[in-house]
Amino acid sequence: MAPNSLSSARVGMIGGGQLARMTQRAAIDLAVRLEVLAASPQDPAVLAGVPHQIGDPLDPDAVVSFARGLEVVTLDHELVSSEALGRIQENGIPVVPDPAALRYAQDKLFARTRLASMGYPIPAFSRVDDAGGVERFASEHGWPIVLKMSTMGYDGRGVEVVHNLDQAAHTLESAGVWLAEEMLDLSVELAVVVARRQSGEAVTYPVVETVQEDGICRELIMPARIDPGLAAAATDLALDVVAEIGAAGIVAVEMFVTTEGDLMINEFATRPHNSGHATIEGAVTSQFHNHLRAVLDWPLGSTRLVAPAVAMVNVLGMGARTAMRQLPSALGVDGASVHLYGKDERLGRKIGHVTALGESTDASLDTARRAASILGGAK
Amino acid sequence: MAPNSLSSARVGMIGGGQLARMTQRAAIDLAVRLEVLAASPQDPAVLAGVPHQIGDPLDPDAVVSFARGLEVVTLDHELVSSEALGRIQENGIPVVPDPAALRYAQDKLFARTRLASMGYPIPAFSRVDDAGGVERFASEHGWPIVLKMSTMGYDGRGVEVVHNLDQAAHTLESAGVWLAEEMLDLSVELAVVVARRQSGEAVTYPVVETVQEDGICRELIMPARIDPGLAAAATDLALDVVAEIGAAGIVAVEMFVTTEGDLMINEFATRPHNSGHATIEGAVTSQFHNHLRAVLDWPLGSTRLVAPAVAMVNVLGMGARTAMRQLPSALGVDGASVHLYGKDERLGRKIGHVTALGESTDASLDTARRAASILGGAK
Repeated sequence: MAPNSLSSARVGMIGGGQLARMTQRAAIDLAVRLEVLAASPQDPAVLAGVPHQIGDPLDPDAVVSFARGLEVVTLDHELVSSEALGRIQENGIPVVPDPAALRYAQDKLFARTRLASMGYPIPAFSRVDDAGGVERFASEHGWPIVLKMSTMGYDGRGVEVVHNLDQAAHTLESAGVWLAEEMLDLSVELAVVVARRQSGEAVTYPVVETVQEDGICRELIMPARIDPGLAAAATDLALDVVAEIGAAGIVAVEMFVTTEGDLMINEFATRPHNSGHATIEGAVTSQFHNHLRAVLDWPLGSTRLVAPAVAMVNVLGMGARTAMRQLPSALGVDGASVHLYGKDERLGRKIGHVTALGESTDASLDTARRAASILGGAK
Repeated sequence: MAPNSLSSARVGMIGGGQLARMTQRAAIDLAVRLEVLAASPQDPAVLAGVPHQIGDPLDPDAVVSFARGLEVVTLDHELVSSEALGRIQENGIPVVPDPAALRYAQDKLFARTRLASMGYPIPAFSRVDDAGGVERFASEHGWPIVLKMSTMGYDGRGVEVVHNLDQAAHTLESAGVWLAEEMLDLSVELAVVVARRQSGEAVTYPVVETVQEDGICRELIMPARIDPGLAAAATDLALDVVAEIGAAGIVAVEMFVTTEGDLMINEFATRPHNSGHATIEGAVTSQFHNHLRAVLDWPLGSTRLVAPAVAMVNVLGMGARTAMRQLPSALGVDGASVHLYGKDERLGRKIGHVTALGESTDASLDTARRAASILGGAK
């Protein structure tokens, strides 16, 4: 993996998943040489031809060795050794996001505790170590409650809605630090995708409305169908909290809006995120382009939408190469932009997404849903 | 270069230039495994991580060996051994475009002779072998005349405007078959980018206005600022001629409009083409996506524009890594989408392009020009 004199910069990304894969589209445009630390030669970014080393992102030596000679190191996922990132920084190579900011995405208990102490609006929560702790929390906030594993959870893993002590006790049998969270009545879930340079310049994409099922994001609508005042408040909150925690690169701030109209911060992703996928076709500059620009401390690109309504629907695996076989049929849906990640099609796994632009949310959503449904096996 | 079970298809492209590089962006989206026959490990597509073999596209054995096991073979440029393409077809592997159609792009004398016999509007021309031939042609059509090398010309090479017999004789000293062409008074040059499946389905992008300098395309405006009737005539002409010659994949049909309003076919590119670059950001489906879809005989994507006016300006090399050094400054131009190909920055060589979307041609053109000018070294 020798440096390449015909590239504008050499950027390392830890993790070779679909986010690294889609970052490669942007790297091609900007003549950036992207390199990934991948878990397997079958990782989506490796299949897209990104130069790679195979290594465990939790092994400090593998991470430090990967970083040698790079201009900057960034992340495809958060499950990375913080010790290693610190050593990379000591070697004079910037890490974006800084490990201190990354911790807000890695450790929910830490993030909630800090956000609460800084006065940001978040759901009521408490660390729970046993049934007694759950009982105390539920007596104050009522059943059901949400139990969340503080670290290592994603796409619904490590998140359980429990309705009684028995269910809670069963969940707590899994190793790890757990926190209890009040179950809110939500009117909508939002995400604000922020691109921020370490030097402070930051831009946001229009607020996105996310539709979750079983903890997995299924659909996005951009812009969110909410009051402009609420959208402005969500945007301000996201910019403020991202600057406060000192994150850079792309940061997605996921938020709840309760039925009473309260805005609360749910969690962070300090990297390109599913809630920004619709920016590939939907915005002048995609989140992947802006991620590279931000980590290289280059001027950020316009986040304006190119259509009144943009929708994105995730494609979940059905097995048996369903999506690959159905791809030509799905391409028959006029206006659908299909992205497949080249992943094994295990049941329920995110293996791609479909974006559509339109004059109305209903029209865009209909187009994206039709193509996604064909990729999922529908005739 | 083993086949990859996680890809939807395995497509070979002969040539590893910027067209193959930009096709890789589309291949990533569609989980297509693109492979190229490249001239050098420094070719733009190879630098973008596309799996490759190094080989001479004029060496039949290299081409045939490259094609082994591929689902379909297509082209990044036309300077390919036709004999080899025939052998690939005999081995049961489709070649898109078919070599018989490719000849229209490889051999100007052949193309003009055939188009004339089929009654398509083209400039007056004649094969010229010596000064006597030039004199006869000029006596009928007047000076200056255009001398074009029948094969191997591109980006202004092999095209000379000559004003007298001495100049003509000097030009004809270069080896090759030459043809003389009347020098037309042009009001505008157009291009129609067609995507066509071998099975016949075809779509066109909105007509593009091209601005040429010294035979090199400098700027594009999409849609062209022409009368809707002329645009419809150009589109119909392009669809008709592409079907007539039996080309598939992306085919760019370059046309002249004379000051008298006559539409004439200039030449063909039977592959993704510079005149389609603005479709990456400007259209729902880029020419690169539609090229892959067409060569795989998959349904073609929408060619609708996403903005009222799209402009593209090419970046020509200045040497000394000017564009690479200037890239961060160029990204400061709001709304500019920059593409660099990772090529050596030799003087006058196409090394990238900038696209901008806007409400008016002037606004888009201004944005794209400002960024391109910075990439060329302007402060």
